[in-house]
Amino acid sequence: MKNNLPKKYKKYLFELLKIESISAQAEHKGDMKKACMLLTNLLGRIDFDAKIMKTDGHPVVYGEKIIDKKFPTILIYGHYDVQSPDPLDKWKSDPFKPVIRNGNVYARGVADDKGQLLTWISAIEDITKRSVLNVNLKFLLEGEEEVGSRNLEKFIIKNKKLLKCDIVVISDSHSLSPQKPLIDYGLRGLTYMEVTVSTLSHDVHSGLYGGNVINPAIVLAQLISSMKNANNKIAIPGFYDNVRKLNDKEKKLLSKSPFSKSDVIKETGALVVDGEKGFNVPERAGARPTIDVNGIVSGYTGEGPKTIIPAFAKAKISMRLVPNQNSKDISKKFTKFVKSKTPRGVKIDVQMISEGEPILMNVESVFFKKAAKALKKTFGRAPIYTLSGGSIPVTATFKSILGVDSILMGYGLPDDGLHSPNEKMSIEMIIKGIKTNIVFLESFK
Amino acid sequence: MKNNLPKKYKKYLFELLKIESISAQAEHKGDMKKACMLLTNLLGRIDFDAKIMKTDGHPVVYGEKIIDKKFPTILIYGHYDVQSPDPLDKWKSDPFKPVIRNGNVYARGVADDKGQLLTWISAIEDITKRSVLNVNLKFLLEGEEEVGSRNLEKFIIKNKKLLKCDIVVISDSHSLSPQKPLIDYGLRGLTYMEVTVSTLSHDVHSGLYGGNVINPAIVLAQLISSMKNANNKIAIPGFYDNVRKLNDKEKKLLSKSPFSKSDVIKETGALVVDGEKGFNVPERAGARPTIDVNGIVSGYTGEGPKTIIPAFAKAKISMRLVPNQNSKDISKKFTKFVKSKTPRGVKIDVQMISEGEPILMNVESVFFKKAAKALKKTFGRAPIYTLSGGSIPVTATFKSILGVDSILMGYGLPDDGLHSPNEKMSIEMIIKGIKTNIVFLESFK
Repeated sequence: MKNNLPKKYKKYLFELLKIESISAQAEHKGDMKKACMLLTNLLGRIDFDAKIMKTDGHPVVYGEKIIDKKFPTILIYGHYDVQSPDPLDKWKSDPFKPVIRNGNVYARGVADDKGQLLTWISAIEDITKRSVLNVNLKFLLEGEEEVGSRNLEKFIIKNKKLLKCDIVVISDSHSLSPQKPLIDYGLRGLTYMEVTVSTLSHDVHSGLYGGNVINPAIVLAQLISSMKNANNKIAIPGFYDNVRKLNDKEKKLLSKSPFSKSDVIKETGALVVDGEKGFNVPERAGARPTIDVNGIVSGYTGEGPKTIIPAFAKAKISMRLVPNQNSKDISKKFTKFVKSKTPRGVKIDVQMISEGEPILMNVESVFFKKAAKALKKTFGRAPIYTLSGGSIPVTATFKSILGVDSILMGYGLPDDGLHSPNEKMSIEMIIKGIKTNIVFLESFK
Repeated sequence: MKNNLPKKYKKYLFELLKIESISAQAEHKGDMKKACMLLTNLLGRIDFDAKIMKTDGHPVVYGEKIIDKKFPTILIYGHYDVQSPDPLDKWKSDPFKPVIRNGNVYARGVADDKGQLLTWISAIEDITKRSVLNVNLKFLLEGEEEVGSRNLEKFIIKNKKLLKCDIVVISDSHSLSPQKPLIDYGLRGLTYMEVTVSTLSHDVHSGLYGGNVINPAIVLAQLISSMKNANNKIAIPGFYDNVRKLNDKEKKLLSKSPFSKSDVIKETGALVVDGEKGFNVPERAGARPTIDVNGIVSGYTGEGPKTIIPAFAKAKISMRLVPNQNSKDISKKFTKFVKSKTPRGVKIDVQMISEGEPILMNVESVFFKKAAKALKKTFGRAPIYTLSGGSIPVTATFKSILGVDSILMGYGLPDDGLHSPNEKMSIEMIIKGIKTNIVFLESFK
């Protein structure tokens, strides 16, 4: 059993993984619908009232099973969209043809989040075969998580009554190892911008015009360079204004977090760990904001030389935020900073592409305690509470609109390669996930 | 006649333009051969002994017509290779399907250099129909000009005897207008480098690892940013060591050059002219060295957000050199500078992709005087002598190995869009080019 996926789970999973539900790319609109239809069918199989609900973007799959109004209601959130599989040539197998190798399933989106959301469908199917649930369950499966959940807030506001619940559970994060479960009690927020620097109406000959016109790639480089100072502090004025300071108790707790220098090096292939001066690895990952260039392009990038001065240069630049930063405030400060650095004769366009708020949860609630117990029973060890570096912006939306916390029960592993080539999910973790969900749901008596 | 291409010239030109002879891209190897065969045939038609000669890269087309050993020998140099047509979507018509619009022929390579080299074949065909030549003629047509003529020096050394001549003529540059011919008496050299910054073994999630690993795109931006200071001076130590200072006479001559601020703005769409402090437009274009980013790429550059930290970032960076800079010396200084700026934990790879030496000609020779006379007769005005910002590295090779100067008789125009989308050549200039060549060749009596 240990190394075999439950038969039905495997069938559901492989069907879902084969669908190229890349939300960022317009050409995959049909695939998004396909994924919705499959999920609606699966929810129907476990006796949920399920339907596809429109948004201004990709649709939401909603399902519910209301047993008794007196029971607590749990909303299970997941997302069926995936990141682009670029760069394709780095994949050992086709990202949309799932395969099992060495106890892992390999495919784009297997850990993020298709394999994880299916652990809940599988757990519910298992329970209802042999007993009854003493909770009401709702599913909210969205198709725009990888593009910043840009229509979800509106959807939740509009369907506030439908989505009413006592707690949200989300399996879209990771444990430290198959022996070390964790619960993220905080998540970073995100402000994702695109900056385009233009100086010419078209690419021009670098010999004829070099020395007399402004090179947009150099201006962009200067701009990016000015965003950080030598101590890896972010130089945007006011950037740190609302950053929550850790107290000694929390600092001590975080210092026990097993996310270490050697983990970073092992998982990323970095030669050194490097970051903001005065903070350690877990603090930098969860309690400090960052700025990163996610992509940059200008001019000729093919084989050999091409002697042009490019007409424009473009960069995707994102910032991870921590409580009590606000994404709109940071987006404004970023834009103002860029404008203030714009040289004469240069056009700079700044677009906000995606944003989400940072969040902190109350881990003392009955729901968090039941989740911790279930994890302890399945994994043989109590969960470690950590601050995650990632962002699940929807958690902030659930808090602000539905007034509830989200329990992040992650069944991924740190080396799953989310957003990277050869994304995988461990079969051992899938099985533990399903079991944990069963224990958790059955603890409501 | 004024607006019609000579019939045969047009036939030759269109056939040659249809061949996608992009030397930088390995997949076009077959097209390079095709272009060679066509040119060999054309030389055969005008009674040259012509052949395709191997090099370590793309072949050379060589042809000769020796009339009398006592006559002076002119070597006509041209190149049949072209730049990549990227970005394709900016072309109004297919780059490899030549069309005539508004008195211009549009196609990749029409001005650089297929249309220009054919003015010589056309001129010779015209003369031999009705009289005899009193010069010996040789053609050297190479296929690697756009990739830095990387095998030509070796070829010229090996075939020094075959290529022996008294002067080289090259039509691969431009006049100021159809009324203002010019002769470039100097050309800039080139050092073209590729820099790759790597910090991770693969792209990683910017949430999970952001704040703890080094972003290679930021390091590359810092590196590029450090290459220039606020006055647009290049900050590489020793970069200006061997730059020839202009004397007052030459400064005065150049100040009369009609290459003005408004030309730069009109031709490039720049909002402002900007460059090295203390120098004017013609000085910066011809007498001062530059540094430019020709291309840069890192991470995700597609639609929408992708929250990764890229594993590497790559830039193509080139420098235009002036007498008496030396490309190997500059390449060494550039590499040393980059290495000195490499932070701990970062791998930076520096590759030299292409190089060529700057050059100055003796404009007092009999050949330059005959060329000036021919241009004056056809254009109705004596040529202006200028220093070109572009590079034709082979001129330096001709000087050092064959011991001869090169006359640059350019029949392009400044707005031809070399290396850019919608490259064109003016029919009026083609006709004037053929006529000038006829007058020049017939002046040897």
